[in-house]
Amino acid sequence: MTPAAPRRPYNFSAGPAAMPEAVLSRAAAEMLDWHGSGMGVMEMSHRGKEFGEIIGQAEADFRQLLAVPSNFRILFMQGGGLGENAIVPLNLSRGGTVDFVVTGSWSTKSLKEAGRYCKTRTAATNAEGGHVAIPEAAQWSLSPDAAYVHLCSNETINGIEFQELPDLKALGSDAPLVIDFSSHVASRSVDWSRVGLAFGGAQKNLGPAGLTLVVVREDLLDRALPICPSAFSYKLVAENDSMYNTPPTWGIYMAGLTFQWLLQQKEGELTGIAAMEARNIAKAALLYEFIDASAFYVSKVDPACRSRMNVPFLLADESRNEAFLTGAKAAGLLQLKGHKSVGGMRASIYNAMPLEGVQALVSYMREFERLHA
Amino acid sequence: MTPAAPRRPYNFSAGPAAMPEAVLSRAAAEMLDWHGSGMGVMEMSHRGKEFGEIIGQAEADFRQLLAVPSNFRILFMQGGGLGENAIVPLNLSRGGTVDFVVTGSWSTKSLKEAGRYCKTRTAATNAEGGHVAIPEAAQWSLSPDAAYVHLCSNETINGIEFQELPDLKALGSDAPLVIDFSSHVASRSVDWSRVGLAFGGAQKNLGPAGLTLVVVREDLLDRALPICPSAFSYKLVAENDSMYNTPPTWGIYMAGLTFQWLLQQKEGELTGIAAMEARNIAKAALLYEFIDASAFYVSKVDPACRSRMNVPFLLADESRNEAFLTGAKAAGLLQLKGHKSVGGMRASIYNAMPLEGVQALVSYMREFERLHA
Repeated sequence: MTPAAPRRPYNFSAGPAAMPEAVLSRAAAEMLDWHGSGMGVMEMSHRGKEFGEIIGQAEADFRQLLAVPSNFRILFMQGGGLGENAIVPLNLSRGGTVDFVVTGSWSTKSLKEAGRYCKTRTAATNAEGGHVAIPEAAQWSLSPDAAYVHLCSNETINGIEFQELPDLKALGSDAPLVIDFSSHVASRSVDWSRVGLAFGGAQKNLGPAGLTLVVVREDLLDRALPICPSAFSYKLVAENDSMYNTPPTWGIYMAGLTFQWLLQQKEGELTGIAAMEARNIAKAALLYEFIDASAFYVSKVDPACRSRMNVPFLLADESRNEAFLTGAKAAGLLQLKGHKSVGGMRASIYNAMPLEGVQALVSYMREFERLHA
Repeated sequence: MTPAAPRRPYNFSAGPAAMPEAVLSRAAAEMLDWHGSGMGVMEMSHRGKEFGEIIGQAEADFRQLLAVPSNFRILFMQGGGLGENAIVPLNLSRGGTVDFVVTGSWSTKSLKEAGRYCKTRTAATNAEGGHVAIPEAAQWSLSPDAAYVHLCSNETINGIEFQELPDLKALGSDAPLVIDFSSHVASRSVDWSRVGLAFGGAQKNLGPAGLTLVVVREDLLDRALPICPSAFSYKLVAENDSMYNTPPTWGIYMAGLTFQWLLQQKEGELTGIAAMEARNIAKAALLYEFIDASAFYVSKVDPACRSRMNVPFLLADESRNEAFLTGAKAAGLLQLKGHKSVGGMRASIYNAMPLEGVQALVSYMREFERLHA
């Protein structure tokens, strides 16, 4: 009997994060010659027909995957989530008032940065409880004149996820909703009827760092302040089909391969994002149920808003943290250390993490508890 | 006798441009597992020790390659040259006056964009002659109070290159010199004593699109306007060793592999950039001498400032353009079409283009002339 090839370790990095092995293998195989063109993807003019095919297919596939309506534009940009914290108010605030729903580290940063360009208001915050629950939408204090309302629909560091986007109209606000969906984009469906703009860095669930995806309703394209840099003007980027400046071509290609991989996913009767969402629900349930059943591990997050993607947890006895991480690495379970601002552990279980990876983590956690409890 | 493996086509793209085959092969081989880490480079936390090694080595290698003095910081950013057209004045103009030396498409764009943030002056321009020569530095009209002087040291579209950077002090100006060296960075040495800041998109000579390199003198770090986005503040990026936000990790890795490839180059007694510069001089001389000796092909650029990297040329009879390009492609010579604003042809012969590629181009041009003259 030949021994099985050693599997790749399971990589729980919060981002840049694990990518599907099939996507990486395909990229390696096409590195020196994309589809017989005689060029690798990194070597192509962004204005040539080869790259035109790549970006066109990527955009169409993302639109299909997430059922993005035709009145939204899909933009491929640069600068990441932190860049967008300035780019969004430069494009949408008109220098007026913006409401922020503060639920953790990322929405806090977004609010702070926007203050350079507009008046910022905290419509709701969970800071007092330590960023572990989402304030009920009916209690939010929304301004009558907000240029937009910002929230982070999945807080990567705190492990909090909106399980449903708020219906601002029903709450009496006409403002467009802006969501930072960096760390759970393409892990679940999006109710676009409630969204004006969504942005996300690619490096969690879509592809490599350096690519930023922006999905924006067309009526919001033409509101930029005069000080908005041209390269980051949604209107200019949209008018030039994401080629106002040279786009991050490799990132778009890798995201495109990921979109194709997502479209091929199946889970019972389900396909694409629906299949992926079902799998993500199962993965998260397995891990949270194990943690809740144990006195050795602790999750502090309100079960109503626990993230399916980022699962921070603590060891009840934190003196065992180093031993836990060392053993995990030896067991082929990588990058489990929690963010320094929260401490403890964090398992990021994005789309590319198979159920088997979460099963392996739970087995390791069970065994570690047995040895150390 | 076994036939030789078919060579890859020679790719004359102006950017994104050809990369060294050795670099691409190495990246393909390491795609799923970087140095036994169990992760591909795109899958690593930017704050982990593995990526720390990659970015640290890349920075040290670039510093060695171009002899960057210790009072300059090397920053890895996003947004490309067009992004920097806003980011430079946001960081350096202080809202005052900036002098521009206009020598072609890129410096024209830089001047226009800076107007959002400061008063812009044209210190010199070659527009009247059609962007084919560089105005003599002694004739430039420099402001006494300029926050900085901007020039594009290699105009990719017009094929004009500064063979020497101006000595602003000798011209009576105390302003720092800002150079956009996107399309000839690492093709020749840089006289840093004449430079305050240099920036370049990576996609010509360093790596993939989406990475921007900024080399900035430390005393210029702390001048940003309050409206400068944090992600694009040189001070914040420098203080955080290019990790204020998630950097374009793959681009930094590819640039790092390219820097190592450059350090290994040899040409007679010369090594590194000196070897590469000697080879670039030889490549450009071969092509320009052939064009000048022929009445069939025309270069309009003043021989005193012809670019070693980007060689625009025309067919005297432009009705043959399509036939020229079709035949070139069949001969394995790709992406020779000139920029739409200049027309004709353009051969971009960056570091990754071997002398053999230019020889193959000249052979093809000679044969095409023989058949069509």
